[in-house]
Amino acid sequence: MSEVYAARRGRLRDRCNAAGNAAALISRPANVRYLTGAAPRGAVLLVGPAEDVLFCAGAPTGEPDEGRLDELLRCTVLHATEGDPAVAAADAAAGARADALAVEEHHLTVARHRAMGSVAPRLRLADLGPAVEQQRLVKDEEEIACLRIAAEIADQALGELLESILVGRTERHLALELERRLVDHGADGPAFPTSVGTGPHSGRGGHRPTDRRVEEGDFLSVCLGANYRGYRCEIGRTFVIGTSPADWQIELYDLVFAAQRAGREALLPGAAYRDVDRAARQVVDTGGHGEALPGSVGHGVGLEIHEDPQLAPAAMGKLDACVPVTVEPGVHLPGRGGVRIVDTLVVRPEADGGPELLTITTKELLAL
Amino acid sequence: MSEVYAARRGRLRDRCNAAGNAAALISRPANVRYLTGAAPRGAVLLVGPAEDVLFCAGAPTGEPDEGRLDELLRCTVLHATEGDPAVAAADAAAGARADALAVEEHHLTVARHRAMGSVAPRLRLADLGPAVEQQRLVKDEEEIACLRIAAEIADQALGELLESILVGRTERHLALELERRLVDHGADGPAFPTSVGTGPHSGRGGHRPTDRRVEEGDFLSVCLGANYRGYRCEIGRTFVIGTSPADWQIELYDLVFAAQRAGREALLPGAAYRDVDRAARQVVDTGGHGEALPGSVGHGVGLEIHEDPQLAPAAMGKLDACVPVTVEPGVHLPGRGGVRIVDTLVVRPEADGGPELLTITTKELLAL
Repeated sequence: MSEVYAARRGRLRDRCNAAGNAAALISRPANVRYLTGAAPRGAVLLVGPAEDVLFCAGAPTGEPDEGRLDELLRCTVLHATEGDPAVAAADAAAGARADALAVEEHHLTVARHRAMGSVAPRLRLADLGPAVEQQRLVKDEEEIACLRIAAEIADQALGELLESILVGRTERHLALELERRLVDHGADGPAFPTSVGTGPHSGRGGHRPTDRRVEEGDFLSVCLGANYRGYRCEIGRTFVIGTSPADWQIELYDLVFAAQRAGREALLPGAAYRDVDRAARQVVDTGGHGEALPGSVGHGVGLEIHEDPQLAPAAMGKLDACVPVTVEPGVHLPGRGGVRIVDTLVVRPEADGGPELLTITTKELLAL
Repeated sequence: MSEVYAARRGRLRDRCNAAGNAAALISRPANVRYLTGAAPRGAVLLVGPAEDVLFCAGAPTGEPDEGRLDELLRCTVLHATEGDPAVAAADAAAGARADALAVEEHHLTVARHRAMGSVAPRLRLADLGPAVEQQRLVKDEEEIACLRIAAEIADQALGELLESILVGRTERHLALELERRLVDHGADGPAFPTSVGTGPHSGRGGHRPTDRRVEEGDFLSVCLGANYRGYRCEIGRTFVIGTSPADWQIELYDLVFAAQRAGREALLPGAAYRDVDRAARQVVDTGGHGEALPGSVGHGVGLEIHEDPQLAPAAMGKLDACVPVTVEPGVHLPGRGGVRIVDTLVVRPEADGGPELLTITTKELLAL
């Protein structure tokens, strides 16, 4: 596996050199992990000018595995026992006679940037911009395999919950149980805080679970994901509690379902991000609930749960094959509740069967 | 309660004006929460030049509570429906003819800082530094009451775990069960990721739970905390599994216990941070394990689990009354395991009985 990381760093180095920078300092944790396979807390990665060096924060812990880190990563590991590893890295880059160091200005704070400038006054600090994030956009099959397993785990956890009795249990407890089941099935943890919304809370993206209990007649919205080897997926479903959904519940569900399907079907290589958004959005608009739809209908996933691309009205760019995204429209009616349906899919060419659905739990309206 | 927040903002405004800045922009989430009682995701707070304004990210969600936010906070709430709320705030400050805006350079990224400068080129961006963090150091009795409840919850969760059968269960499961119990007892969530270490993993600060199962003869280290209304405490205990601890286990436990007690007893108003560290450290040194002790023996807690002060050898400053801190020495012997004992206490004058222990679970060496 270490060849994969060395190759990723090689691509970054080429890009960096082409822009006239001898070296790059990567500080954003997900980017460090993408380029090395590990992201010790506070560690930063210096790519070039000579060898690549991971600067860790604090003293070595003396664990048996730690001594093998450089071997595993195929890059040198240094410990900045005092102070900021980014400053130590700037010092090292200046010592290696680099003239310019590209940094992640969208991640580095003003104070750290200034401290780097102070320790290495002759080193020109340039902006790397989201170069690593762009490299992360299209996933290789190893990464997609991790996402596929993450989705399987989430499907299993959700499936087990649906077999249990729900009425009378609180949103908090349901969320905790889902997170426990994710870990039971092999997740490293939840991909993001699990959201469970009942009754008037249902259908809201990012709702934080409360002590409200599930009642007969409620909509119940659940949104969860597994983190498997760092890769994060998302699944969301909405159910009805009791035997007969009300007419307004069926209508709202059918509307969101149709919007979500339209979004999924728009996922093809070459499709503009905004067109995927529009495909889902116009269904909701036609149904008269356009103003209730959030600002985007989906986003990329990978080492972070929110990555590029944004599937939103003002987003610029087109989908590539092997880009995993969510499609997650939702409509929430204040005081009443709502419906949200979320899948994680991988963009694939039509010749390969079109978008690959990773989260396969049924999207029929289940009455539980 | 809203008077409390207005008074906190008043103190910050005075300090800011004294430094020649008409206004301050607070972006660090815990600081925003300290000054308003709320911290919607991505929100930033503009203090002065005229009224205080909370700039929220994204469009209003239309929830019934949302309309009351400005009333609750006693400051105006605006929604930056597109783009960065910090940029909207800089624009507003320039529009209100502020000449200088103090920002949190230790939190704001270079890219955001630049975008603020672009939208308001005549506005001088100064550095506020850790002014709000310093204001947060000494807690009022309301804040300490929240920490006291957080500690009670953690004690309860830990106490229940000790009554259950532990042998054969994995670190991950024990950690998840503790987190569930925290929420059962009223926590808003864990204060930080719960750490459970068995056998060779025991005694390491920040150990991430694995699938290793508890075995007879193991040391078992547990470190957890509750988040109650935003306030976070920490408790850590080490136990022995089985009936008779080995001699090395008893010796190591007694050593860490003595060090932790020495640290606790050093907590008095006027004591230098470094002297608290030294009190605990010299016990471990004398016992021959000084090199195994981490870089600090404790830290402040509050709205964040790691706050100032650091109780470390090079720390500058002295304790005040009403500062809550942890005392948490640990010794981990690679390959064998170790002991870590963590309490949260509030510094109190000797006349009031000395340090107030919030986490009251016994520190006897229990064999479970």
